[in-house]
Amino acid sequence: MTDAAATGVRPYSPGLEGVIAGETSLSLVDGERGRLLYRGYRIGDLVAHGTYPAIANLLWSGDWDPTHHLPTAAVPPAVMTVLRTLPSTTKPMDALRTAVSAWGATQDLPWPPTIEQATTLTAFTPSALAAFARLRAGQEPVEPDPALDLTEGFLYQLTGSRPDTGTARALDAYFIVGAEHGFNASTFTARVVTSTRSDIASAVTAAIGTMKGPLHGGAPSEVVDQLSQMKNATSAEAWVRDAIDRGERLMGFGHRVYRAYDPRAAALRKVAEGMAHRPDWLERAIEVEDVVLRVLAEKHPERPLKTNVEFYAAPVLMGVGLAPDLFPAAFSLARHAGWTAHALEQSADNRLIRPDVNYVGPPERDLPA
Amino acid sequence: MTDAAATGVRPYSPGLEGVIAGETSLSLVDGERGRLLYRGYRIGDLVAHGTYPAIANLLWSGDWDPTHHLPTAAVPPAVMTVLRTLPSTTKPMDALRTAVSAWGATQDLPWPPTIEQATTLTAFTPSALAAFARLRAGQEPVEPDPALDLTEGFLYQLTGSRPDTGTARALDAYFIVGAEHGFNASTFTARVVTSTRSDIASAVTAAIGTMKGPLHGGAPSEVVDQLSQMKNATSAEAWVRDAIDRGERLMGFGHRVYRAYDPRAAALRKVAEGMAHRPDWLERAIEVEDVVLRVLAEKHPERPLKTNVEFYAAPVLMGVGLAPDLFPAAFSLARHAGWTAHALEQSADNRLIRPDVNYVGPPERDLPA
Repeated sequence: MTDAAATGVRPYSPGLEGVIAGETSLSLVDGERGRLLYRGYRIGDLVAHGTYPAIANLLWSGDWDPTHHLPTAAVPPAVMTVLRTLPSTTKPMDALRTAVSAWGATQDLPWPPTIEQATTLTAFTPSALAAFARLRAGQEPVEPDPALDLTEGFLYQLTGSRPDTGTARALDAYFIVGAEHGFNASTFTARVVTSTRSDIASAVTAAIGTMKGPLHGGAPSEVVDQLSQMKNATSAEAWVRDAIDRGERLMGFGHRVYRAYDPRAAALRKVAEGMAHRPDWLERAIEVEDVVLRVLAEKHPERPLKTNVEFYAAPVLMGVGLAPDLFPAAFSLARHAGWTAHALEQSADNRLIRPDVNYVGPPERDLPA
Repeated sequence: MTDAAATGVRPYSPGLEGVIAGETSLSLVDGERGRLLYRGYRIGDLVAHGTYPAIANLLWSGDWDPTHHLPTAAVPPAVMTVLRTLPSTTKPMDALRTAVSAWGATQDLPWPPTIEQATTLTAFTPSALAAFARLRAGQEPVEPDPALDLTEGFLYQLTGSRPDTGTARALDAYFIVGAEHGFNASTFTARVVTSTRSDIASAVTAAIGTMKGPLHGGAPSEVVDQLSQMKNATSAEAWVRDAIDRGERLMGFGHRVYRAYDPRAAALRKVAEGMAHRPDWLERAIEVEDVVLRVLAEKHPERPLKTNVEFYAAPVLMGVGLAPDLFPAAFSLARHAGWTAHALEQSADNRLIRPDVNYVGPPERDLPA
């Protein structure tokens, strides 16, 4: 029992803001100092020296093995039939949610969740999303290539050909920075589901449905629109000044938690800068970013907005050839490592998550005669 | 900001126990006084004078119309194909979760959720569960009969024939007492999903996955096993004394919230007692209950356990011919009214639900060389 409960005081914190709902060893989101750590390691170091499979393994097991290999896994036949059944106009997040739910229906997933279950599920979803994207375009799905690691394998199954090194590296970096971020709404949902001793597929299905909401999954295509309008560094300055004067919100700048520069954006920019041949979208983002930051600092010197992860996420995803309506689903693929790691952590020291609620409705009354 | 946050004190309440996570006008769960109110009306009165469609309408709209009609709705062709694709060994909760997710993929469900969306979804799921139950038994699904109200229509689609009045009434009473119960884990999940501005199908899909967990959805078939072993009032007494002496947990007695008699159990027993012809399982439950309560009061006079809703839920569901592995799914059908009403209430005054978490992992460190 908390002190508050012991004294009979039961404060209501809308949206549970500032309420500690659990404990985690998986990540530290330190907004004041602009730090993001996965199991103590800085996100910049992880992007520089790791791969998504190595980071997923780190989150699941706590062990650092930069050589950890994780290829994509085949879509079970029943789930492929489900994907073929969905209309081609289906929203990608609806398709992904349904695919994971159907996958869970075809698996034996006894309590508690295991690293093996987490691995199998995380390896399955990229193949499912690639299959959906091809089917809606009238193309046949591509089988996994077990020699390729997860993000490269996803691109291969999406396009039918092996991506160049830079493209694969950019997407892998995006997957690493998207893998885990504390108790955001979707991860919290996955933990509530797990806390009832439900299975890992139910937890991830629920998390995908949560991330579908624009207040969580965001609207990354808006960054693409904005970059299109800015065109290049020369025309960007006038565009930014006009936008700020019109009171428009600049996409990709400012973050609820990170007061300083978003460490995920920094890591993605560093990867982009190290590429011999950058996709056009990344080239433009780098050109434009410094202009925007300069204008923002000039307009609001007391509290200049800094770049957030969306600013680089969108050009990375455009650069690898993803349609903007697939961006939230790609974000979901990346977050699988975190969601499933939280399911493991929740189950290891489980307690049902069940808050209370204030009743504010009518007092007890009789039914109308 | 709460007082606790203002003073820098951030207590951690495991499982959010005693933490107020929101406000609701939908129901009051008053454990001390053994009361359950939907919008101020006593659950006993609602069961006595209402039907499930009238109660769903009350929860959605706040209006009391005992003549409100709500038939089951047809399963869209794509969703029926999905149900036909799932293996016959699929767990019913996995099938229901996948059916609702696929249904959402075929619908246009713009924000915010509406009563029309809540109605359509609540009318769809009984047909989906009935179709799944028939398909796995090698039978063809039955189309809805628009003349029948929801619970009677569900039984018709499950069995292929119209139920007798007593059977339909018993299931309808069960659906009413199962419709809503504050911020349990599944309802809370539905509100977290909705708080991101995600859609009502994502919210209910997540809620089904949450209810799948035995810590929430329970194990109602255990009550059936227990009633089977007790046989009748005469042999029940010896069985109960032996069970208590062996330290076994009696299923269907005692409740986390209700210190007194569970008002839902009282309402279900009253319906059962009013029937001219009771199903055998209900007959046995009534016979046995008084014996068990007498022995419990004798063994633990300081704090005698009282009957909870599970004790009557199980014989009602057996009585209408449901296989025990379908009980949690039937509970989910009943809870649709509450889940969707909470989605409406959350969206009407929305704020993203995102708690904080304590980091307890390794301090910042370098990657191993």
